[in-house]
Amino acid sequence: MATQNIYDNPEFFAGYSQLGRSIEGLAGAAEWPALRSLLPDLRGLRVVDLGCGFGWFCRWAREQGAAKVLGIDVSERMLARARAATADAAITYTRADMEGLDLPEASFDLAYSSLALHYIEGLAGLLTKVHRALVPGAHLIFSVEHPIYTAPTHPGWSVDAEGRRTWPVDGYLVEGPRTTDWLAKGVIKQHRTIGTYVNLLIRLGFAVSHLEEWGPTDNQIAARPDLAEERQRPMFLLVAARR
Amino acid sequence: MATQNIYDNPEFFAGYSQLGRSIEGLAGAAEWPALRSLLPDLRGLRVVDLGCGFGWFCRWAREQGAAKVLGIDVSERMLARARAATADAAITYTRADMEGLDLPEASFDLAYSSLALHYIEGLAGLLTKVHRALVPGAHLIFSVEHPIYTAPTHPGWSVDAEGRRTWPVDGYLVEGPRTTDWLAKGVIKQHRTIGTYVNLLIRLGFAVSHLEEWGPTDNQIAARPDLAEERQRPMFLLVAARR
Repeated sequence: MATQNIYDNPEFFAGYSQLGRSIEGLAGAAEWPALRSLLPDLRGLRVVDLGCGFGWFCRWAREQGAAKVLGIDVSERMLARARAATADAAITYTRADMEGLDLPEASFDLAYSSLALHYIEGLAGLLTKVHRALVPGAHLIFSVEHPIYTAPTHPGWSVDAEGRRTWPVDGYLVEGPRTTDWLAKGVIKQHRTIGTYVNLLIRLGFAVSHLEEWGPTDNQIAARPDLAEERQRPMFLLVAARR
Repeated sequence: MATQNIYDNPEFFAGYSQLGRSIEGLAGAAEWPALRSLLPDLRGLRVVDLGCGFGWFCRWAREQGAAKVLGIDVSERMLARARAATADAAITYTRADMEGLDLPEASFDLAYSSLALHYIEGLAGLLTKVHRALVPGAHLIFSVEHPIYTAPTHPGWSVDAEGRRTWPVDGYLVEGPRTTDWLAKGVIKQHRTIGTYVNLLIRLGFAVSHLEEWGPTDNQIAARPDLAEERQRPMFLLVAARR
């Protein structure tokens, strides 16, 4: 019950606000086309976005025809900006620590989460509530930082004797907190294996329908050559499941 | 259709024959207790073992009450030893290249494979046949070398500036052959991501029921301290699915 609210740290927030995904929205996130392709037709769906940030996905979901959207985030700063950018009575933003989250039973057709669940310490408790909040057949679609990305004691490229860049994996099977200095000092993420994510979903009654260790397409690399290194080790894990 | 038959290479075979898992059988494989725990009650089941090697699992399955067992392997040397060690009319050993395999339809309740599928180039074709050979509700349980283990251009521990051992991942999302010198020169394995394994199973109509990135238990490390490094990066991936 101790998930850090790093997004309300002024230094972190200032840095995060400068990222492509903060300025351009969904189009500024290289993994968005792959994540989008996992989504069902949103027309008429009741959607909850866990870790909605600036609300880009909530507004996009409404543009796609979602009936109503609930965006949840722990960060006051992010929600303030989300509310300022939204004029749509079918979108509600709620501030909540996801570990203490209370969702109405059988009320949603889609639960979505982008790069938020790897911050959550009590993931089993949260996903239990999400399962209860979804109707039978509903979708759960989320992205997290990939375990290969979160595992290392020292995340960052190494250069070997022949000048090759490699990603130095250690501690992969040692799950738990990892403290990194990303945008601010002391950002805490929870490292979990892919097996842990998948088995937790199965145990809760979800059927896993797609698992993607995201990498850039050839077209994306042609447009942004710096993305090529994302093929060397995956940064994101995308998961689709049905209740 | 070009899977290498490295097990009939005399140098490889001589080395492989000295491994704990070759001499002690199932008990000599550290991941066996975890793999075993994924198996259903074998009593009365019709079992096919893809890559049966010396036949340890085939004989064990019969001890557990399997009705009949078909062991398939491409290696004549291994099958010769398997046959010499087996006196049981309910066990059949067949030599076949798994890529050209022909199995009767709806004839098995369990397909099992230990550390063989990462050699197979045409995995989709093989698993399509396996799906057809299984009855509805049947189990598919297999282990492969973990993608983190197979990905690197130079698989082997690196030592960083502070003396920490790390596993140098590169090429993770670049699937295809990897040539290593394990027991003999030029052993060819097929590197695939976890996502590729999982999505292939789902596409064929399997429901994934368990995914385990294997690591040693505390008791195993107490008995064999050299196993501790297996927690730093997983060597094996264990998968359970239902048809």
